[in-house]
Amino acid sequence: WLRETSKVHADASNFASGVSKREAYEQVLEQARALFVGQRNWVPELTQLDGSNLANAASLLWHCYHSLPNPSSAVNWAGFYVLDRTQQNQLILGPFMGKVACQTIAFGRGVCGKAAEEGKTVRVQDVDSFPGHIACDGDSQSEVVVPIVQNGKVMAIIDIDCAMKDGFDQEDQNALEELAALLSEACDF
Amino acid sequence: WLRETSKVHADASNFASGVSKREAYEQVLEQARALFVGQRNWVPELTQLDGSNLANAASLLWHCYHSLPNPSSAVNWAGFYVLDRTQQNQLILGPFMGKVACQTIAFGRGVCGKAAEEGKTVRVQDVDSFPGHIACDGDSQSEVVVPIVQNGKVMAIIDIDCAMKDGFDQEDQNALEELAALLSEACDF
Repeated sequence: WLRETSKVHADASNFASGVSKREAYEQVLEQARALFVGQRNWVPELTQLDGSNLANAASLLWHCYHSLPNPSSAVNWAGFYVLDRTQQNQLILGPFMGKVACQTIAFGRGVCGKAAEEGKTVRVQDVDSFPGHIACDGDSQSEVVVPIVQNGKVMAIIDIDCAMKDGFDQEDQNALEELAALLSEACDF
Repeated sequence: WLRETSKVHADASNFASGVSKREAYEQVLEQARALFVGQRNWVPELTQLDGSNLANAASLLWHCYHSLPNPSSAVNWAGFYVLDRTQQNQLILGPFMGKVACQTIAFGRGVCGKAAEEGKTVRVQDVDSFPGHIACDGDSQSEVVVPIVQNGKVMAIIDIDCAMKDGFDQEDQNALEELAALLSEACDF
């Protein structure tokens, strides 16, 4: 399904119909690896390039979820927040697919802030029962946030929202943690 | 449709059904203004913040098009390329909505490269008839690219693809040029 593995092509966002979650995530990870190959040291200014990697990664995730049945198909936001370089313990909005989102999130605030503060995945089956949830989009019912850790420090987070409760299971968590490890290797945040 | 104008909320991406193109673009521009207010000088490191503005702008545009009838609803990519700071005359992928896309585009290459090189909007009703079109996604049939100019220099481009021919008219071009002017004021690329 990819014409050339070395060239970025929109086909990377095409997932076969009836694909399983495992297969869909495998495609995401394989594509992410291909996209990021050689990108790290390609240019000295890494901010822009990381943004570029994250933008394509958000696209892959979005199309992955929408190729799967519910609840995955009900994913309504998929993207990244990155560490704010100028304000301590604050995240700033990165590339994403979905509706407009909060531009900054303090560590400790909401699901994203908790995952960033603790450096651990936070998976919430019902956001209404999560104390301090940031209701940026009232459609969101469940959420999973996975930190991207480099040298022991949280540099960014993967944030996925779902418009259904119980949107994410252990398989989602495992795959997103694998993607986070891959991004940690591929990017210099 | 916005609970608080000062706070970013996903409702900004909700467009009323049956909205006209003029009304939809008005909402995009009004929301973009609100989103960007005070953002420019808010933090000294502007790269991240510009990325954040552009990510939300891409979301607004995407949801704007998908609230309209065809051909606007057939928009299959909406986003930004920004000037590569480390490689002369090259664009690098910024935030977008749609399928994964080429990470870099040289000035002069394809519709994006032509608009960047000439500093002028390029509107292509049928990409197959555009010499040197970059077929990153075979679904794209028409395209409009609007440069974002600061101090006489192209710093980024807005790129919108449509899966139908003749996807964009003069009204689209005018509104996107207004958005480009707004982004030129709001961001330090």
